Amino acid sequence: MSRLIATYLIDAEPDRIDERAHALAIEQSVECPDEAIHDARIREEIVARVTSIEPAGERRFRVDVAIAAATVGDDPAQLINMMFGNCSMWDEVRFVGFELPPAMLAAFPGPRHGIDGIRALLRAPRRPLTAAAMKPQGMHASELAAMCRTLALAGVDVIKDDHGIANQSYSPFAERVRACQAAIREAVNATGRPSFYAPHLIGTPRTLRAHARIARDEGVRVVLVAPMVVGLPAFRDLVDEFPDFVYLAHPSFSGAARIAPALLFGRLFRLLGADAPIFVNYGGRFAYPRDECAALAANARAPWGNLRTALPIPAGGMRLDRIDELLAFYGPDTTLLIGGNLLIAEGDALLARAREFVDRVAAAGATA
Amino acid sequence: MSRLIATYLIDAEPDRIDERAHALAIEQSVECPDEAIHDARIREEIVARVTSIEPAGERRFRVDVAIAAATVGDDPAQLINMMFGNCSMWDEVRFVGFELPPAMLAAFPGPRHGIDGIRALLRAPRRPLTAAAMKPQGMHASELAAMCRTLALAGVDVIKDDHGIANQSYSPFAERVRACQAAIREAVNATGRPSFYAPHLIGTPRTLRAHARIARDEGVRVVLVAPMVVGLPAFRDLVDEFPDFVYLAHPSFSGAARIAPALLFGRLFRLLGADAPIFVNYGGRFAYPRDECAALAANARAPWGNLRTALPIPAGGMRLDRIDELLAFYGPDTTLLIGGNLLIAEGDALLARAREFVDRVAAAGATA
Repeated sequence: MSRLIATYLIDAEPDRIDERAHALAIEQSVECPDEAIHDARIREEIVARVTSIEPAGERRFRVDVAIAAATVGDDPAQLINMMFGNCSMWDEVRFVGFELPPAMLAAFPGPRHGIDGIRALLRAPRRPLTAAAMKPQGMHASELAAMCRTLALAGVDVIKDDHGIANQSYSPFAERVRACQAAIREAVNATGRPSFYAPHLIGTPRTLRAHARIARDEGVRVVLVAPMVVGLPAFRDLVDEFPDFVYLAHPSFSGAARIAPALLFGRLFRLLGADAPIFVNYGGRFAYPRDECAALAANARAPWGNLRTALPIPAGGMRLDRIDELLAFYGPDTTLLIGGNLLIAEGDALLARAREFVDRVAAAGATA
Repeated sequence: MSRLIATYLIDAEPDRIDERAHALAIEQSVECPDEAIHDARIREEIVARVTSIEPAGERRFRVDVAIAAATVGDDPAQLINMMFGNCSMWDEVRFVGFELPPAMLAAFPGPRHGIDGIRALLRAPRRPLTAAAMKPQGMHASELAAMCRTLALAGVDVIKDDHGIANQSYSPFAERVRACQAAIREAVNATGRPSFYAPHLIGTPRTLRAHARIARDEGVRVVLVAPMVVGLPAFRDLVDEFPDFVYLAHPSFSGAARIAPALLFGRLFRLLGADAPIFVNYGGRFAYPRDECAALAANARAPWGNLRTALPIPAGGMRLDRIDELLAFYGPDTTLLIGGNLLIAEGDALLARAREFVDRVAAAGATA
């Protein structure tokens, strides 16, 4: 079976690293206890495997995990999901590398232009290149165009929007791109050397597409995109649909883990339309603090303008024997999500166990 | 001027917190030194302001920053960008809250169904609800359907795909949704109580839309989406386009900051099509370690299957006086990106300063 290798640094005591590495391999593949796997084929072909554990510092290990290519296919969202989905939430884990099998790698385009293409565009085969950012945001399109002209006249190779420049009323995208493109053409005519204006493409996928079309129609060749802001899969679609652009990738939002869980799940997901945020419960496999879970649930349900309330779904290592405790904690406006702890049974036993789950929740709800 | 309030916890010595908070306000608005702002209107209306600093523990402060609504508009990508774009990369900063002005808040839909809608769908006005996840991935569609039927017969309210279940060859999306929907209909007919199967929507925006249509056509009412995997803006588009679904939001990839920068920018962005990753340089405002920057640049340029190489663009607090040092470090296959340090000049002085930048880089490149 074809497998990709994902590599992690894991902080652990030496006598616990085997167990931690195995837990990660499970988390990033079948995400359930061994007892919930009733099919030898799945154990053989689907479950991820730890293939190497090497010391990498004091109480730190470098761990290779072989993940079945069949679980990923060639979708970039699923690739992220399988390599660093849930385990991204473990404080002691850092995702540091991956190798794809050749057939999977061949399904990804990589840069459409890269170093050679950029150099050809700039007629600059060897020299180091230059770029400038136009700031501060708040300037009108005509002011940005004037700055763009100036920088191009100076011979700067690429002049990009500041990543804060989007489609604001004081500098609408279409007007800005038209003005800056005119300015740079004028400058290039004057200097006789190529320079490129790189507008910032930002928005939902529909906005990205609309803006990319405007930019293309205006003759833009280089664009700025922040993949973590627009989402890595949306970035991939954009590249596919507009392969003629040179893409400058901006790091904005790349440190998003430091968003407090109560905010990300309870407020931001809700703001964007999540009816029910699933989050990792206290005392489970991830162990957000109990207070954080309470704050998250409170945020999801709190009055907030005209927004509807969202339904908290605690999950992650939940067990039947915690139902009473959890319902006492979260109250009735809650969905309890139990995964592996149900599926340790199968067939009729699963039916019974799931019924027990349903009944216990109903009973706890009735007495609450 | 209308402003939103973003709130951060910042670790700092008491005698430095004023300075750190101000730096964050600058970073999340104009992203350039005061000297680069030549327009009183921008200083007044666009630059973000620190409105409150309160102690929140030892060497920790709670800081409110008022960000101009005009810089955001109503785009979710730009909202993320302005609230936690660059400052997400500061280790000592944690994004913990925000309040939007009423007009901005009204532009976001929030949940389309929420607690009340979900309860109505389930005909369960008060009781706590139940959900189960189907695992392990690797099961065929018919096996999942059988499990789904069992769980629905048990009376589980919502039965979702494991978040690892996507569109794999052993369980293609369309076949799985059809089978599970048929199974749950059969179970609901038997039990007389509502239960819902929630398939996992994952992929690029184009795939998300195609799969959402299939699900809708099969009568699906509840879906699972991991917003950090598909990207928050793509999630917003999906909600807009398919408002009838109840969205379960999965936390996969929410801890993404622990991706090593050399990997995220040098490998993952490249894999998805970035021609040139911009990243924060060592010794600048963010100060990735020098070794990490070297590894990042090496990754971007290293042979890797048939992928083209990507062009490293170090940035973030770059200065003219570091050109020689940086080119010696990165070599010629590099774009140096200088923002605010150029723009402390304006008009003719900016032209001259930018020319100096261009010339110095050319000179350093010629002698390299």
